[in-house]
Amino acid sequence: MLEKTNRMNYLYDFYQALLTPKQSSYMALYYLDDYSLGEIAEEYDVSRQAVYDNIKRTEAMLEEYEEKLLLFEKFQKRSELITKMKQLASDGENSVLAEMIAELEKLD
Amino acid sequence: MLEKTNRMNYLYDFYQALLTPKQSSYMALYYLDDYSLGEIAEEYDVSRQAVYDNIKRTEAMLEEYEEKLLLFEKFQKRSELITKMKQLASDGENSVLAEMIAELEKLD
Repeated sequence: MLEKTNRMNYLYDFYQALLTPKQSSYMALYYLDDYSLGEIAEEYDVSRQAVYDNIKRTEAMLEEYEEKLLLFEKFQKRSELITKMKQLASDGENSVLAEMIAELEKLD
Repeated sequence: MLEKTNRMNYLYDFYQALLTPKQSSYMALYYLDDYSLGEIAEEYDVSRQAVYDNIKRTEAMLEEYEEKLLLFEKFQKRSELITKMKQLASDGENSVLAEMIAELEKLD
């Protein structure tokens, strides 16, 4: 569950601009602010089931966007590369660094 | 017009996964394969106006996605950085390189 929360936080971060304001509010309250479904339902004066359905649909949408655009996957790969590159840059190992930069370029 | 074609080619490249198959086909024929509106209309047995309207709507959608996700803008910034980093890596200027890698990281 923690892993899913973590993933949803990232997907929300990458794709929130593509959600409706209501979808975005529910997701932020549920995943970022740790509200329960019941608390969100009360806040918006709707049923708990309505909040649950909306969040489930939004989760599926975020996964669909990720399947199509891979922003989170690329971000993870880029982060790994950048960490290694920083180490190498401080070590002065430039030929290996050049290979990594080439790999980074392929991600775009 | 050439600049617009170039921009549309890039936007299409970044966001084509979010288009419908028909939108995607029309855009590919018009922007990548340089078909005329009339040729696409003939190919799909629809009116020239229908093709024109579809392409105009798709162009607006692509610009809207770019406004929200900035994939093309980030790609351009990343490309610039990568070009400079390659030069620096081959020159062995590591402290400047480290600053650039930090800048690259901020784009994610």
